[in-house]
Amino acid sequence: MSAARVDRLARVRRAMAASGVDALLLSLGADLPWLTGYQAMPLERLTMLVLPVDDDATLVVPGLEAPRVDHDPALFALRPWSELEDPVAIVAGLVGQRASLAISDRAWATFVLALQEALPASRWTRASAVTSPLRAVKDAEEVHALAAASAAADRVAAQLLAGDIALIGRREKDVSLDISRRLLAEGHQEVNFAIVGSGPNSASPHHEPGPRVIGAGEAVVCDFGGTMDDYCSDITRTVFTGPPPEQFVELYGVLQTAQVAGVRAGKVGVPCESVDAAARQVIAEAGYGDAFIHRTGHGIGLEEHEDPYMVAGNTAVLAPGHAYSVEPGIYLAGRYGARIEDIVVATNEGPWALNEVDHSLVVLEV
Amino acid sequence: MSAARVDRLARVRRAMAASGVDALLLSLGADLPWLTGYQAMPLERLTMLVLPVDDDATLVVPGLEAPRVDHDPALFALRPWSELEDPVAIVAGLVGQRASLAISDRAWATFVLALQEALPASRWTRASAVTSPLRAVKDAEEVHALAAASAAADRVAAQLLAGDIALIGRREKDVSLDISRRLLAEGHQEVNFAIVGSGPNSASPHHEPGPRVIGAGEAVVCDFGGTMDDYCSDITRTVFTGPPPEQFVELYGVLQTAQVAGVRAGKVGVPCESVDAAARQVIAEAGYGDAFIHRTGHGIGLEEHEDPYMVAGNTAVLAPGHAYSVEPGIYLAGRYGARIEDIVVATNEGPWALNEVDHSLVVLEV
Repeated sequence: MSAARVDRLARVRRAMAASGVDALLLSLGADLPWLTGYQAMPLERLTMLVLPVDDDATLVVPGLEAPRVDHDPALFALRPWSELEDPVAIVAGLVGQRASLAISDRAWATFVLALQEALPASRWTRASAVTSPLRAVKDAEEVHALAAASAAADRVAAQLLAGDIALIGRREKDVSLDISRRLLAEGHQEVNFAIVGSGPNSASPHHEPGPRVIGAGEAVVCDFGGTMDDYCSDITRTVFTGPPPEQFVELYGVLQTAQVAGVRAGKVGVPCESVDAAARQVIAEAGYGDAFIHRTGHGIGLEEHEDPYMVAGNTAVLAPGHAYSVEPGIYLAGRYGARIEDIVVATNEGPWALNEVDHSLVVLEV
Repeated sequence: MSAARVDRLARVRRAMAASGVDALLLSLGADLPWLTGYQAMPLERLTMLVLPVDDDATLVVPGLEAPRVDHDPALFALRPWSELEDPVAIVAGLVGQRASLAISDRAWATFVLALQEALPASRWTRASAVTSPLRAVKDAEEVHALAAASAAADRVAAQLLAGDIALIGRREKDVSLDISRRLLAEGHQEVNFAIVGSGPNSASPHHEPGPRVIGAGEAVVCDFGGTMDDYCSDITRTVFTGPPPEQFVELYGVLQTAQVAGVRAGKVGVPCESVDAAARQVIAEAGYGDAFIHRTGHGIGLEEHEDPYMVAGNTAVLAPGHAYSVEPGIYLAGRYGARIEDIVVATNEGPWALNEVDHSLVVLEV
């Protein structure tokens, strides 16, 4: 992996030079592990990689985290700090006179403000301006990891569609826990979320699974994903407990057509927003335009949500190796909703949907 | 709870006025749930409470999170934003001409930088400058919640000390998982960490439990905690698998004396650093000064680590209702280490240690 990381480091340096960034400051988020293999802890004790465009990188790390660092001197020097040192002063010292600084998108405000005070002549931008175009294009090894995570999520979705995960009579949050356990059993190291929205809750896209007991004759939206060998899965399937009403069948048919249209629109060279437009057009033409209240998708990789986003206004162009979700939904408030989601990788041979489990409306036996 | 929150809001407004803050901008972290009961999701979609010192508060929230908000109009207005709106512009509009702004310590850098660009005349400080002195003093209900979480952690620690949690022959990470399950079984909703460091790993304070198989004749440091009804637990006990060497017994005796000294030093009115000094002095006088490589403690509440910190240089004065850890450690690199940790609440009747499980050196049967 070190060779891949040395190559990433070289590409980051070129991107920094091209965009006039003098130093990259990486803390929380996926840029740091992508580049070094080390992930900062979300702590009040600052961890920060200082990567000057013109000098070697240094990882500033709390002394008591230092033993956790798998240190590769080819990538960075290690600068542990003790409890009586000021890590912001150490970072500022390493930055020196460099003025154009890019900081991790998820770095805490407290450190941004302290660094701005310590470096009054500095100009700031987000690190993703440098790293995101690089991280968005997955190499073969990364696509392999995404495909493996998606396959694991597919196996859980298949259990759902086969009726192996009991729904009726159980609370949403218990079904959510059940799905979480199955994600771990299928090889994920972490569960990132397991949304279970039943009945009227199926019309709330980010519903938090609660005490509601799932009944017969209800839509149940299940949207779940986790992290497997550092890469994320994310899948949504919607089932109905017992025979669905006619309008739901029609709505689901529209949604399925829209989702396929979104997947197929993901051709290398088209703007990301055209994936959104393709799915949205189908739904709007069927009269459900107001009921599709979110973007069509998000990039995925080391993070659940990352570039590129499939949303109106994003004119960035799809490239081979871009990995993202296609997840249109139709939500009728107070009644029911549905969503279908796959992870897709853009390739020169066309869009490759990593999730293969059945997309059709599954009616579970009551 | 709403009455308590209305009172908190009034106290926050007074603190803002006293420190010249025109508007408080709350996003990720515990300030927002402490004040409103709503917790922002760590998402690229911005959630932010805008609380002007001179006007009503507004919660700016992604449209698809809005159904999750338990909205109390006495506390704030709700401003959901759609996928095609710019939430930064909405926040900037609510801020208006107000210039002195305090933002959540854990708000993402990407939003700090975008808001600074949208509000070029603004001056920034961290929200904790306003909220932290208020949040650090726990009311009776909060102390009750902390005590309940500590009691649950104590029950797991008691299982460890009784030998109910098998150690020898198991991997650290499996023991960590076992402890995590027990924390949940004892009433925690979330596990925040479960450090298990055995043998030489016991000398690494923040060791990540790994594949190392625990053997006989080893120190095992177990430091674990979770969240129960919103409040955190955090406890450390160190055991030895089989008869310990004489030097470890001596080291542990020093540590236990130091930990008691740290707890007893926590009197209302003394500076926080004197708690650190009391524990450190015992360890230094025994010749282990260089082996105690971290501060003595941290505040605890809605967050695992929050004000007040028990560290040299912190001259803030202990007040009734301050809750914090006392957790000295002695670490001999490559050999073994030990740590003992309790949560303590400062009261007018003296320090009240919430953790009551045995502190003496427990030697487990081989």
